[in-house]
Amino acid sequence: MSREQMMDYVRAQMPERRWTHTLGVMESAVQLAHRYGADPVKAELAALLHDVAKYWPIEKQRQIVIEHQLEPDMLNYDPQLLHSHVGAHIAQERFAINDQEVLDAIRYHTSGREQMSLLDKVLCLADYIEPGRDYPQVEKIRQLAESSLEEALVAGFDSTIQFLISRGKKVYPLTVQARNGLIDEIRGRSQQ
Amino acid sequence: MSREQMMDYVRAQMPERRWTHTLGVMESAVQLAHRYGADPVKAELAALLHDVAKYWPIEKQRQIVIEHQLEPDMLNYDPQLLHSHVGAHIAQERFAINDQEVLDAIRYHTSGREQMSLLDKVLCLADYIEPGRDYPQVEKIRQLAESSLEEALVAGFDSTIQFLISRGKKVYPLTVQARNGLIDEIRGRSQQ
Repeated sequence: MSREQMMDYVRAQMPERRWTHTLGVMESAVQLAHRYGADPVKAELAALLHDVAKYWPIEKQRQIVIEHQLEPDMLNYDPQLLHSHVGAHIAQERFAINDQEVLDAIRYHTSGREQMSLLDKVLCLADYIEPGRDYPQVEKIRQLAESSLEEALVAGFDSTIQFLISRGKKVYPLTVQARNGLIDEIRGRSQQ
Repeated sequence: MSREQMMDYVRAQMPERRWTHTLGVMESAVQLAHRYGADPVKAELAALLHDVAKYWPIEKQRQIVIEHQLEPDMLNYDPQLLHSHVGAHIAQERFAINDQEVLDAIRYHTSGREQMSLLDKVLCLADYIEPGRDYPQVEKIRQLAESSLEEALVAGFDSTIQFLISRGKKVYPLTVQARNGLIDEIRGRSQQ
């Protein structure tokens, strides 16, 4: 499948404003990849596919997670988490992408995970700061992204956790573990 | 050992202001036990012992955790978590308390845990709201404690998590799981 066909397919899965967001994440992911030494081609591919399943009916997403045993524990949390795992599944099944780095970056772009790879970080942060994003902490996170991938991502996860708390919603423990892992990385560096 | 000897021992392990706090937690724990149907004698005993190790040198606490394999994962987090597990150990070893309900309430009074028992909740909440406590959200938590043990505790954990985030500190995942479990309990009740 050509890149153009892939873009057409992804675009057809979502409302136009989400396609604009996807293009923004692709742009930011490539920028961050260049800045921090990740592979910009992989970053752009993961960004293109990261939200492919986001507007599919939740019930369809749940079914895919159950049928393919993608991460059953997720079913107890915010349904917004499902599309990342479903997206990785679709990337593999429909687009025959077998690069685990790309698949993992898609899979963990919402929750993060305990030991985030460089590509995980690039996609997750690009999703927080792409040019179309507008929420209270975004400027601070964009500024941190100029100098530290990890500090910017901690600030991103902080904003997510604070938002969930303010709404009385459950927090996915893996996100807290992702944030803890990044803090350890930052501390480890400052002790060197 | 008489109750008086036990009180003397605990008092000798901490500065006077922490002893005042301990008496406050005992008072609140007994009140909450009566309000929510827990055993007030167990609640008072767990409250008396909950901070017995809090002012021991951190290195001594770490050694006890390592030597008795109390919960090695805790060593990667805020050292403030250690005293709860060390306290439960001391309650058992020094005071021959073998009531698992009391020991668990002491053990999880700082972090909470996934499925909190009634006594866990009573001690943990008493620790948040005893009369000597003074922090921004305490009045809101005291008010919630009048009508719901679980809602008050969620607000307590919210304040802890927000405090840790504001300081750039790691959050112990078990605390997030404790909060998630309480939210499930509250939702389950409201759907009945």
